[in-house]
Order: sequence, then C-alpha cells, then structure tokens
Amino acid sequence: MLVQDVRNSVIDVADLNQLKWDLNRLQPVDVGEYITQLPSKQRAIAFRLLNKHQATDVFEYLPPEVQEELINSLHDVQVVQIVENMSPDDRAELFDELPAKVVRRLLQQLSPEQRQVTATILGYPEGTAGRVMTTEYVRLREGLTVGEALSKIRRQDEDKETIYYAYVTDDNRKLVSVVSLRQFLFTFPDVLIRDIAGDRVVKVKTETPQEEVARVMKRYDLIALPVVDREDRLVGIITIDDVVDIIEEEATEDIQKLAGVSGGDEATLSSPLVTLKKRLPWLFGVMLLYIGASSAIAPFQSTISMVPVLAVIMPLFSNTGGTVGIQALTVTIRGLGVGEVTPKDTLKLLRKELTAGLGTALALGLTMICLSLIWAPPEERWVSLIAGTVMAINTLVAVTLGTLLPMVLKRLKLDPALVSGPLVTTMLDAIGFVIFLTLISTALRLFHLK
Amino acid sequence: MLVQDVRNSVIDVADLNQLKWDLNRLQPVDVGEYITQLPSKQRAIAFRLLNKHQATDVFEYLPPEVQEELINSLHDVQVVQIVENMSPDDRAELFDELPAKVVRRLLQQLSPEQRQVTATILGYPEGTAGRVMTTEYVRLREGLTVGEALSKIRRQDEDKETIYYAYVTDDNRKLVSVVSLRQFLFTFPDVLIRDIAGDRVVKVKTETPQEEVARVMKRYDLIALPVVDREDRLVGIITIDDVVDIIEEEATEDIQKLAGVSGGDEATLSSPLVTLKKRLPWLFGVMLLYIGASSAIAPFQSTISMVPVLAVIMPLFSNTGGTVGIQALTVTIRGLGVGEVTPKDTLKLLRKELTAGLGTALALGLTMICLSLIWAPPEERWVSLIAGTVMAINTLVAVTLGTLLPMVLKRLKLDPALVSGPLVTTMLDAIGFVIFLTLISTALRLFHLK
Repeated sequence: MLVQDVRNSVIDVADLNQLKWDLNRLQPVDVGEYITQLPSKQRAIAFRLLNKHQATDVFEYLPPEVQEELINSLHDVQVVQIVENMSPDDRAELFDELPAKVVRRLLQQLSPEQRQVTATILGYPEGTAGRVMTTEYVRLREGLTVGEALSKIRRQDEDKETIYYAYVTDDNRKLVSVVSLRQFLFTFPDVLIRDIAGDRVVKVKTETPQEEVARVMKRYDLIALPVVDREDRLVGIITIDDVVDIIEEEATEDIQKLAGVSGGDEATLSSPLVTLKKRLPWLFGVMLLYIGASSAIAPFQSTISMVPVLAVIMPLFSNTGGTVGIQALTVTIRGLGVGEVTPKDTLKLLRKELTAGLGTALALGLTMICLSLIWAPPEERWVSLIAGTVMAINTLVAVTLGTLLPMVLKRLKLDPALVSGPLVTTMLDAIGFVIFLTLISTALRLFHLK
Repeated sequence: MLVQDVRNSVIDVADLNQLKWDLNRLQPVDVGEYITQLPSKQRAIAFRLLNKHQATDVFEYLPPEVQEELINSLHDVQVVQIVENMSPDDRAELFDELPAKVVRRLLQQLSPEQRQVTATILGYPEGTAGRVMTTEYVRLREGLTVGEALSKIRRQDEDKETIYYAYVTDDNRKLVSVVSLRQFLFTFPDVLIRDIAGDRVVKVKTETPQEEVARVMKRYDLIALPVVDREDRLVGIITIDDVVDIIEEEATEDIQKLAGVSGGDEATLSSPLVTLKKRLPWLFGVMLLYIGASSAIAPFQSTISMVPVLAVIMPLFSNTGGTVGIQALTVTIRGLGVGEVTPKDTLKLLRKELTAGLGTALALGLTMICLSLIWAPPEERWVSLIAGTVMAINTLVAVTLGTLLPMVLKRLKLDPALVSGPLVTTMLDAIGFVIFLTLISTALRLFHLK
C-alpha cells in the first residue's frame, strides 16, 4: 500500500535532498498527510521543498487549520501563486474556512478572472450544485470539427479538472450536448463535433441540492456532470471525486442524526465542546419528552407498588419495543436517503412492515408471556397475559411509527432524519407504558385481584 | 430532469414505433426502470424493441428477478448475445443470482474467452477486489510509442469499460505504470509510453476487501484502480461507478447494523420474511440480554415497591443513558467506517469522549436531581441525590463503552458494527440499574429511611 510507503520513506527530516525527491514524487494526498503530522514549525520547511505544481496539489489536501497556518508562514508571493492555481471549487472551500480579513487580502491579489470565478461560486448557497462545482471544463462550439476541437483542447491549460468529457454549447453558451474524449479517438479529424455528440445530456441546475447531484451521478454512472444556470447556460461541472465525498457525508449525517447527534456532522475527533453542542440538545430533548410521558405514568405509581413484577417487566418492554421501532425507522430513513423508496411507496412499505410486524408481534408477545410467567410470583401471574398482549400491540405501533414518521416528514419536504432514534423510543415507551398500566389497573379494579 | 422525461415519453405502449425510437435514445438506466415497472407480460415485448447495443446496456440495469424472467422468455440466441456482451463484472453478478441450472446452460454457450473470464471472477470470494473488478481494460507494453499505443487502442473494442487510463505492463504482465489518456493528447506520437507514464501506481490485490478498495480510490481521487494477483500481474480494474455503489452499501450496512438489523443489508422493500429473518435475532438478543440483567435486578423488587418514585425515575434513567451510549457508539463506528480514526486513536478518542462526557454527566446529573425532587413525595426526596449521582456515573460508563467496544473489535480485526445499539443500551440499563438499586437499598438499610 502506498500510504505505508510514504510514512516510511520520509521519516528522516535531516536529509533534505532525499526528502525533496520523495515529496515531489509521492501522491499529493500522502504528502499532505505527512506534512499535517509534522510538528507545526517544520510544516513550512517541508512545504517549501515542493515544486510549484506539487505545492498546489498538496495544498488542496491539507486540513483547513494547516492551510491557514501555511498561509500565514509562507511568503505572500508563494501563497498567491498556490491559491491562484487551486481548482475553483477547492479555493471556494478554503475561503469558506479562512478569516474574512485573510480572504479579502487574498482575493485582491488574485487575477481578475480567478477572483470573479471564486466570487461566483461563493455566491451560491452551501450544499447546492453551484457551490461544489468547478469552472474548469472544456467547452466546444457546435460547429467545430474533431480536429479543431483537439487542437483547441491541446492549446488550453493541461490542468482542466477533467478533459474526459467536453461540453458542446451554442452561441448563447447554452448546453447542447456532451462528447466523450474516447469518441475523439475513434473518429476522423474532419468529422463535425455535432455529429458525434450524443443528445442525451444529463445536467443539473446551480440550485440543485448536493444530495440530488450525487443521486443523478450515481444513477447515470457519470464521472462528470454539467451544471447550468436558470437560462440553461453552462456554468460549471461537478466531478465524481467530489460526489464520492458528498455520498459519504450524507450517510454520516443520516447515521448520526438517527443516533441523536444534532446536525449529524460531528467529526470523530472534534473538540469536546463541539461534541457537547451536538449531543446535549437531544439528551435534554429525551428528558423533556420523558417529563411529558411521566405525567402520564405518574398516576400509576400505586399500581406499580401493588404489582412489583412490573418493575422487572417494564424495562424489557421498553428495550424491546424501542429496538423494533428503531429498526423500522432506520430502514425507512436509509431507504429514503439512497432513493430506494419515495413517499409514493408509503403504503407499500407500511404493508411490508406490518406484515413482518405481525410475525414479530406474535414472537415477542409469546416470549413476553413466558418470561413474565417465570418472573412473577404465583399471585401476579395474571399480569403475563396483559404483558404479552401489550408487547404485541406495542410492536405494531413501533413499526407503524418508525415507517410513517420519516415518510410524512419527507412528504412535507422536511428532513426525514429529524425523527431520531431517541424520539421514537421515548414515544414508544410512553405509549406502551400507558396502555400497559391502564390495562393492569383496570384489571385490578374489575377483578379485585389485590 | 431526465428521469421525468422518460416516464412521460414512453407511456403510450400502443405506438410501438415511437416507443422503439424512445427506448433506443434514452439512458439505459431509465429504460431499465421503465421496463421493470411494466406488467410482466409486456417486458419482453418492450425489450425486443432495443437494438443490440442498447439491449446489453439496459439489461445490466435490470433487477435480478427481471433479468431472470427475460432470460426465460427471450430466444436463446438473443440471451447469449446479451450475456456475451455484458461487462464481466456485471455478468458475474448476474450469475450469482441465477439458478445453477441456468448458469450452466449459459456458460456452455458463451465464447471460451468470456467463459474463462467469468469463471475467474466468480472464483474470488464475495466482497473482494477480484469479485468486483472487470477484465476489460487497456493494457500496453512498455516499449510502445504513443502513436503505436493509440492505434492499438483504436483497433480494440470500443467497449472497454474505461479507456481513460491505460496500464503499462512488462513482459511478464507485471504492472509497471499507468498512463492517462489525457497525456496522449499532449504528447507527440513518437514519444515512448515509458517516458510519459508516471511511476506512482496505486493498486490493490485481488483479495483486498471492497471497503479497502473504496477507501483507496477515494483517497487518491481515482476513476479506475488496477487489481493485481499475488505475483503482481495485472488481472483487472475496478471503476469508480462500482465504488460509489460499494460506499453506499457499506454505509447502509453500518447504519442498519447499529439499529440491530443483522447483516445490515435489508432492502427497504424486501419481503416481510427477509425482514423477520434480519430483525428477530437482535430482538431475541435484547430479550436474552435482559434476562441476564433481570436476574441482577430481580432481588431489588422489594426496594422498588418500597420507593414507588423509582418506577418513574428508572425509565428516564434508561432512556437518557442509552442515548448517551448510542451517540458515542455511532460516532466511533462511523469514524472507523470512513477511516477518520483507527484503533491507534483509541486513547485520543477516549480522552475527547470523556472530557465531553464529564460535561454531559454534570448537566444530566443536575437535571436528574431537579426532576426527582419534583416527582418524589416529600418522604422519598433523598432518592434524588442518588439518582443524580448514578446518572452522572452512568453517562461516563456509556461514553466509555460506546467508544471502547467498537475500537476493541476493530483491533481484533472483527467488524466494529457487531456492537449494535440494542446491545449497548441493554448493557447500560443493567449496569445503571444495579448501581442505582444497590445504593438505594444500602441507604434504606443504613439510615432506616423507611
């Protein structure tokens, strides 16, 4: 594995010549990792060993805090050169993280062309296609021949983010078609571009949310996707490497939100303060929900003290019911997240969940009856029948809530992951306990069992 | 959006000519979706309208049950033609799903070359690089010039999965370097391949797990990754579109396993039977765990009946502690999943979690004291102090378990997601309840409070 190679080959900081050779030969991401783990003071030294091209590539892979540190410790000329050569999308990301003062200074020193490009990208809202696109792409006029197109591409900067596709526009910059570079290889130079370009252009708008961008690229197996403005004019492209990151981010968000981490974007090694800020809201949420629930349970305190086996049964009840709910909730939210289901499938999904739920209810209800029979002292054994019945009911309520809540949110165009696991389990606890305790106290009253 | 276009443009099945035109012009994935939603009998009719090239492309996008149906209803000649032209990796996937009898019949009718390729891929274990790779790639000898390479590429089948990269091998088929097609465009025809090829080859072995494949491609922003055998000979490549699917699958697995869905691969609209099979194991697991826990709690039944407010406090306890544990567990498992942390970071992560945990413990402990003061009748108010203290302790236990359990599993080279949410919450319940009830009953005994 290359990752290993790096770590071993650049340990010796004393031998600068060898280090220079290694750093310029290795993959930018590996060099970035190496520089990041160096002590703060040595980072600029190592970075200065990179040649111009490698310096820009490596810089794009550094974490924001190291980028900022280098911007402050390198010469202005070098900084501007790097920032000028960065891909527009990576530059926009950098500017997002830097202090406003530094951004203003850097913007002034950029070429007018790059300054405008950066301002445009930063003008789109976060999380949209406009914000993650790059403006480095190959654009061709419809009327060109393959030969003319090739020499145009050769004249352009070799650094275009992707030249595997070229985008064909009309006189008003409107996107007409896409041509794959591989088609050039199989075509004679005097063929017109318009004759080999396909008419099936998949594109997104600048305001398309990034999740939708990811879904479109995944669906059509694309490695680059053109972005157009409201007038259908080509303004940028999104490349697959950014989409891979988006897919991973979105999954992390879903998974963390389900666990009750607000925002769903806690870095594993974030500062403890960030962790507190992300996790406390749902913890207090659970407590608050429970206060509501407890006011429903409180009146039953005497029931519980009359039938002590309840104290053993109720937590089992709560754990199992909660798990059933979270299973259904998770499968639904993830299904919505990857586009396996849409709100249109609500009934179909509910039918499946309830069918499986009936089986689960039967299995859990019977087990509950057996367990309570074993646990309860002889005079409390009648409880087991009620426990089993309520366990079964609670299971059906659990799958229904777990399926419907996210579907309804999605239909209302809200984030389905707003329903987190803790919300569902607490709701289920409250519903289950109230049904259970009501039945028990009714039985106590009706049959004078105690 | 194109997806919309399809659905609208191919509604009228009566006009076969128009339909034929549409189906051959649209994106294969859209046509696949259209055919899938047709009534079973009409699928073969629509499919026969596709030209040879489109038929193969569309076939690759059909779900396995529709593929099998078409294999049974189309003419053998047509089926063999489609299967012969499929990418080797998609064909291997298809054969995985089909009944053994059908596979044998199809294998016999394939060309010897394709038969061998398929057998090779199917020979690698599921979930490894060898199984997801394709054998369609461009291989060049070191000694060729750019011009010779280009005419070799032009002579080959236009259908190679990716010709954006070509792989350079020595006389023993050993992978030496990679050359990007874009480099060809900027180089004179008489330059030797070996002079423009980079020496930084990122590659994986046939036995590399697919998660590792995804991590490598993501790290190096690759659109294709070469796969070598034990003797370092090139045997295939993996393309980014397959990796996008792998990343999504792995995230779904993590998220579902955490929720207690065994295997983590339940399709949202699976059959209810599959759902039962995936979800019941953890539900019974929770019950079994709880039986263990209950034997620890059971002796305290008299304590609970002596202090009825416990019945209200304990579920709050359990809900909140469980949520704290799941938050830490989820962040750790996801961090391991995307490679943000490794077992080496265990201490660093534990330090962060415990620091944040202290803050959480303080906040939750104090809230717990306040709530129990409000809920408890005057003679039971002393319980609140114990409840607050145990809530704080339980919080620290929760973050410790949530962080350490997956880290230890990962270090033992097991799947960290084996620790699912239900396991952690049930453990926390047992630990918290036992500490809590022991303290309460000790206090009762020592101070003769009742």
